[in-house]
Amino acid sequence: MSSGSIASASSRSNMRLTSVVSHLSDSKPKVVICRDLGPATALLMNRTDIEVVLWPEDRGCAREWLLENIKGAVGVLVLLPDIVNAELLEAAGPNLRVVSTMSVGYEHIDLPLMAQRKIRVGYTPDVLTEAVADLSVMLALMAGRNDGVAYSLVKNGDASGSWSKFNWSPFTFCGPQLSTTASSPNRTVGFLGFGRISQATLARLVPFGITHCIYTGSPTSKPETARDAALKAKYKLAAVERVDLDRLARESDVLFVLTPGGKETYHLVDAAFLKKMKEMSVLINTSRGTVVDSDALATALHEKWIWGAGLDVVEGEPRIGTDHPLVKEPRCVIVPHIGSATFQTRMDMATRAIDNLIGGVFGTEMPAELDAR
Amino acid sequence: MSSGSIASASSRSNMRLTSVVSHLSDSKPKVVICRDLGPATALLMNRTDIEVVLWPEDRGCAREWLLENIKGAVGVLVLLPDIVNAELLEAAGPNLRVVSTMSVGYEHIDLPLMAQRKIRVGYTPDVLTEAVADLSVMLALMAGRNDGVAYSLVKNGDASGSWSKFNWSPFTFCGPQLSTTASSPNRTVGFLGFGRISQATLARLVPFGITHCIYTGSPTSKPETARDAALKAKYKLAAVERVDLDRLARESDVLFVLTPGGKETYHLVDAAFLKKMKEMSVLINTSRGTVVDSDALATALHEKWIWGAGLDVVEGEPRIGTDHPLVKEPRCVIVPHIGSATFQTRMDMATRAIDNLIGGVFGTEMPAELDAR
Repeated sequence: MSSGSIASASSRSNMRLTSVVSHLSDSKPKVVICRDLGPATALLMNRTDIEVVLWPEDRGCAREWLLENIKGAVGVLVLLPDIVNAELLEAAGPNLRVVSTMSVGYEHIDLPLMAQRKIRVGYTPDVLTEAVADLSVMLALMAGRNDGVAYSLVKNGDASGSWSKFNWSPFTFCGPQLSTTASSPNRTVGFLGFGRISQATLARLVPFGITHCIYTGSPTSKPETARDAALKAKYKLAAVERVDLDRLARESDVLFVLTPGGKETYHLVDAAFLKKMKEMSVLINTSRGTVVDSDALATALHEKWIWGAGLDVVEGEPRIGTDHPLVKEPRCVIVPHIGSATFQTRMDMATRAIDNLIGGVFGTEMPAELDAR
Repeated sequence: MSSGSIASASSRSNMRLTSVVSHLSDSKPKVVICRDLGPATALLMNRTDIEVVLWPEDRGCAREWLLENIKGAVGVLVLLPDIVNAELLEAAGPNLRVVSTMSVGYEHIDLPLMAQRKIRVGYTPDVLTEAVADLSVMLALMAGRNDGVAYSLVKNGDASGSWSKFNWSPFTFCGPQLSTTASSPNRTVGFLGFGRISQATLARLVPFGITHCIYTGSPTSKPETARDAALKAKYKLAAVERVDLDRLARESDVLFVLTPGGKETYHLVDAAFLKKMKEMSVLINTSRGTVVDSDALATALHEKWIWGAGLDVVEGEPRIGTDHPLVKEPRCVIVPHIGSATFQTRMDMATRAIDNLIGGVFGTEMPAELDAR
């Protein structure tokens, strides 16, 4: 399916020529695709009603290539690293009708400018809910169960050698248990933000025996007491309750950060918040790195204010070196923003992004259109 | 609580003297404890009706110490590495009434010999069900989501550098998704062995949207069609069905090995079995290493017969070096037998082992007694 290798092998002396182009014609609307979409690329290249210009290399789209190739385009399919700003619109010219991003986030798109120019914007929410909820549960288990240390022992050995040499004792590698037991029958799960992914994560935790669910919502949002009562009854929990940040920090045994990024949520989890948390609690962040103050979290782990952390996102990513203070904390498990990285979900996201693009190009419905106004 | 450090600091010239001994008296029954049980040790040391001799060091109990100290003991509390055989009974003498192991396995105890000598045997089943089910789900998620590779990238860097340098593309790090989605609505979970831990694992997977459950049971066990129908109805699954090994291999998307060890299950998962499995399937073993042929599994991963594996146990553990073929496989996630390693569960296991010991010493009920006959 991938056509990148063919294009890469051709001459790069003329940027236009190194692109993969389908059905070249002046009469057909031109769309620019900033990334090979793997198996989904065929969904675009097989169409005869559009001209497709595809970034040909197996790395992020070069800005100069994009500025050159977007001239006259009606639509563009972008990813998080592709900044959609005045410069890009200027290069595109007046034909541009739609920007479709293969992401649930849209920090890279200047939305007021899009509204002003009447350019429609598509994104890919919902389809990644299940994959991110899966990863959230995985990280909660890994952070509690000392997985970083345990895994590293087997894989890399440690100061005292590898598995074959380590000194077992009845409490080696022990951590707090996610599931309840007869002698430890209560578990409170907290959510900073209680949208679709949080609720999908909650559903997964019910058979682990969790008993209480608390969460914080945006200060401007309305209470949803009827929904909460329904969730409480459905899952047979002792509580599903919206609380303030103070209670969220103090009462959660496992705390999931699942809130949008941006100024409103910047460093909501800071030193003051972390100091209120339980000593045996774990913190999971599978949303945006900016919500958590990395230095404060590193201190919290180092000084054992909390038990552990599981992170799919870190502020400043991907510029996170092996000397980052969180990477060096043994009880911090970090994966490189793979929340939606499953074949099923990424294929769904690519398909959704393509459907949004096509809807925008032909002025029909877009399955997931952002209201940019 | 740990008294090991005090004892270790004292002279080791006389083995008897270096032991931690409580309430020394010839009139009280003597028990020997082969490991400091952490916080649970106090439950023993505070008793005034027994004499407790505790192995004082923070490492596995030395055989010579055990053989020396077990003389005249009424009870002994052992762990998996402590072999209970004729040699040990000989050293103990005729007073020995009970062997209590802090483990669910009892391969280290010569059961026929115990029956012959009328020595009662206690173990700790049930209490670790939830902890092992938690870990089974964790490993299933990690194996599918390429966690080994993703985690190592952030933690250690790799050939192409760390997170900051890696070449993202829409399908980087992608693996098969555990949960179902609208476009991928079926998932079959298989269990090799369908006891308590398997059923607790199944319960946890229901909210992930799994649709089919298949399992194999011991050839001598009776079909449980009523139970299976009840589980199917309770979890709203398309099937809960006992199958043969062939179907288990061919149909499982995620396969959990959760069966006792020993001759009957030795290498049930071998090359022939693995060759039948789906290319996108993952194999999880949280029971006994001997059930899986390690060389065959390494080949299966290397040659991509299956997608990935998550192992808490490996044949020959703990003698598993960093050059073991499974440790070297990037899609094999291995943790060092930490299935029951949570504070809650290990404390429950220690408490249960102590209760078994006391019951055996005083000839009363043991909460979990093995039928050694």
